[in-house]
Amino acid sequence: MLDEADDSAGISRVAGGIAVATYLEQLETPVPVVDLDRLAHNLDRMAAYVTLHGLKLRPHVKTHKSPRIAAEQLRLGAVGLSCATLREAEVMSEVCDDILLAYPPVGAARLERLARLPQDVRVSVAADDIQSLDALSVAARLGQRTFDVRVEVDLGMHRVGVTTPEKAVAIARHIDRTVGLDFAGLQFYPGHIRANVGEQDDLVRKVGTDLGAFIEALTDAGFPPRVVSGGSTPAAWRMHEIPGVTEVRPGTYVYNDRTTASIGACDWDDCALTVLATVISVSVKGQAVIDAGTKTLGREPLRAEGDGFAMVQDHPDVFVTRLSEEHGILDLSRSSWRPRLGDQVRLVPNHVCIVVHHFDEIIGVRGHAVETRWPVAARGRASNQDFDNAPSKPRMV
Amino acid sequence: MLDEADDSAGISRVAGGIAVATYLEQLETPVPVVDLDRLAHNLDRMAAYVTLHGLKLRPHVKTHKSPRIAAEQLRLGAVGLSCATLREAEVMSEVCDDILLAYPPVGAARLERLARLPQDVRVSVAADDIQSLDALSVAARLGQRTFDVRVEVDLGMHRVGVTTPEKAVAIARHIDRTVGLDFAGLQFYPGHIRANVGEQDDLVRKVGTDLGAFIEALTDAGFPPRVVSGGSTPAAWRMHEIPGVTEVRPGTYVYNDRTTASIGACDWDDCALTVLATVISVSVKGQAVIDAGTKTLGREPLRAEGDGFAMVQDHPDVFVTRLSEEHGILDLSRSSWRPRLGDQVRLVPNHVCIVVHHFDEIIGVRGHAVETRWPVAARGRASNQDFDNAPSKPRMV
Repeated sequence: MLDEADDSAGISRVAGGIAVATYLEQLETPVPVVDLDRLAHNLDRMAAYVTLHGLKLRPHVKTHKSPRIAAEQLRLGAVGLSCATLREAEVMSEVCDDILLAYPPVGAARLERLARLPQDVRVSVAADDIQSLDALSVAARLGQRTFDVRVEVDLGMHRVGVTTPEKAVAIARHIDRTVGLDFAGLQFYPGHIRANVGEQDDLVRKVGTDLGAFIEALTDAGFPPRVVSGGSTPAAWRMHEIPGVTEVRPGTYVYNDRTTASIGACDWDDCALTVLATVISVSVKGQAVIDAGTKTLGREPLRAEGDGFAMVQDHPDVFVTRLSEEHGILDLSRSSWRPRLGDQVRLVPNHVCIVVHHFDEIIGVRGHAVETRWPVAARGRASNQDFDNAPSKPRMV
Repeated sequence: MLDEADDSAGISRVAGGIAVATYLEQLETPVPVVDLDRLAHNLDRMAAYVTLHGLKLRPHVKTHKSPRIAAEQLRLGAVGLSCATLREAEVMSEVCDDILLAYPPVGAARLERLARLPQDVRVSVAADDIQSLDALSVAARLGQRTFDVRVEVDLGMHRVGVTTPEKAVAIARHIDRTVGLDFAGLQFYPGHIRANVGEQDDLVRKVGTDLGAFIEALTDAGFPPRVVSGGSTPAAWRMHEIPGVTEVRPGTYVYNDRTTASIGACDWDDCALTVLATVISVSVKGQAVIDAGTKTLGREPLRAEGDGFAMVQDHPDVFVTRLSEEHGILDLSRSSWRPRLGDQVRLVPNHVCIVVHHFDEIIGVRGHAVETRWPVAARGRASNQDFDNAPSKPRMV
């Protein structure tokens, strides 16, 4: 950033007291850059999909961690938000009054923060264990509120969730009998469904059959689910094929990434977030070194055929094949392109959620023009007051 | 954190207006926890090593990103600090007046921030390309200062650095002739030297021979290096075996991790930082799910024999073998230990620098007692004033 604007040179403009780079080329790297037109298209596309199929959209904020984008999702019809951390829930409560903690509500500190969310926010959680419900009930009393509780079921992801309808009924019954808890329905995470319509049809049918058994057992036991929530970006586009699903919880669709494009869950032109990086060394033959390493890109595998940790947007045969903390190595062996020292490149990362998690702000662009920037306000773990009031400099060693 | 202290229960104390958890068991997870005695031991051990061998210590702050630990390193004799980012350099300039940007000084925005570091800070950089020197000279003029410049040489890591003594001499000569730049010496990153004394002896000898050729060529050309800087934590312990080395730049040694312990660069009892996590689901047989995922641990490979992304400290046969963003899967197949829902575990991560990069604060403990906390103040990229003054909420889409 420049300290003084130099409008005569036409390269910067003053806004809010500081100069903002007008063009991509002036930005300090590495930095995540979002194409605002692509972002708008992605938001509209999911909103249109759920409207077409009569599904409710409760987007997961883990991808963007930004109240500004969450507000846009809500404006486009989302019924509420899904959050993974209490930090996310606290920050999002400023723009949303219907929040799902899509994460096991286990641990005293987590439950206390959950209880202390603003009173006007309707809070839902999911549970896969009767044991967790007593502490949840205590938290509801502490917060003088009622939690909507969904039973988390495992439909093949094998991460969390109950595996039999009998267990789901037992948990639903326990929820129903517990003060401060309301049984709301079922939730599952179909992260293993990754392909487009027409592929993995057997898997989608099996998930539908298994889900049906849970819904039937709960209904027969007197606990018909109000909500049946699936989701995740690649699977979201198939949720209309699964009978009984009422809600989807996709996150990645706002930005997309190399994985979602590679598996056909979006077009390459829908990758809204790229990492702008600079070539910082060309001293070793056959490679170029850029300033985006593990601390920018993470070390996420491509969940599809293909090598590397990110792809150069304009040179899709060039990947980041090796990483150090602040260095990325571009393998040039399959390309005739030879970048020079100081050149900028835009990278499509394998997994965009991890990139966003590393940064405090996002730059919004149209074409090469920098138009806006916004904070990744829900990044991190601390509550806002928590850290600001920390005791100053106690003895260390 | 509790809003009100309850001293009668003996579980919290009031400090700086908020209650601080007194015991590990009360902390919200996931959170990085540092054993203060181990940290002190690690700091002392490296200080003693460099004193013994007459080396200078310029620790890399990338591991801790904390001015408080940097100040302790300087108190113990470090001659200055090494930084990878301008954020690190800016934050560390509050406690240190001798800073090396151990990163290619390429890119206009990076150079501008480098030039604007406080005037009382002596700034060193490394270069592996003549092309970068002109811009560096402009930055020196802009900042009304002189940069000490080291020639970066490649001794087998193949990431950055010149590969021949002739190129090193050409760059040294160019530095010597350029206004605002002073030739300071040589720098290399021996990240490929990973083992203890007695192992990799041939490699260490080869690095010594290659380095000798660079030193000799420069000396013969009239540019005897004042500084010959090697480093990295595992290799630091061997730098006294390489003739001519005057300085080391280790980072990881302050905390250590599963990799440094696995390759014998420290004892397991020297792993000062663990990630405290909570078991949040036991619904799937043979595994337990914890709340430390990729957004806590990263997805860093163990740079030694062994599986997984982290090890449970008290159960060294249990690893985190699968990761989602906020979930880690503990594989219990090799252990008879069966954790319960809500149990806490302490994890030794494969790569500690990545864990620290994900968090805004670190908790300091002795045994189970929480004693202090400190901010990861140099995390992120922005300069302090940069973001605080950002234009408020411009139009997004």
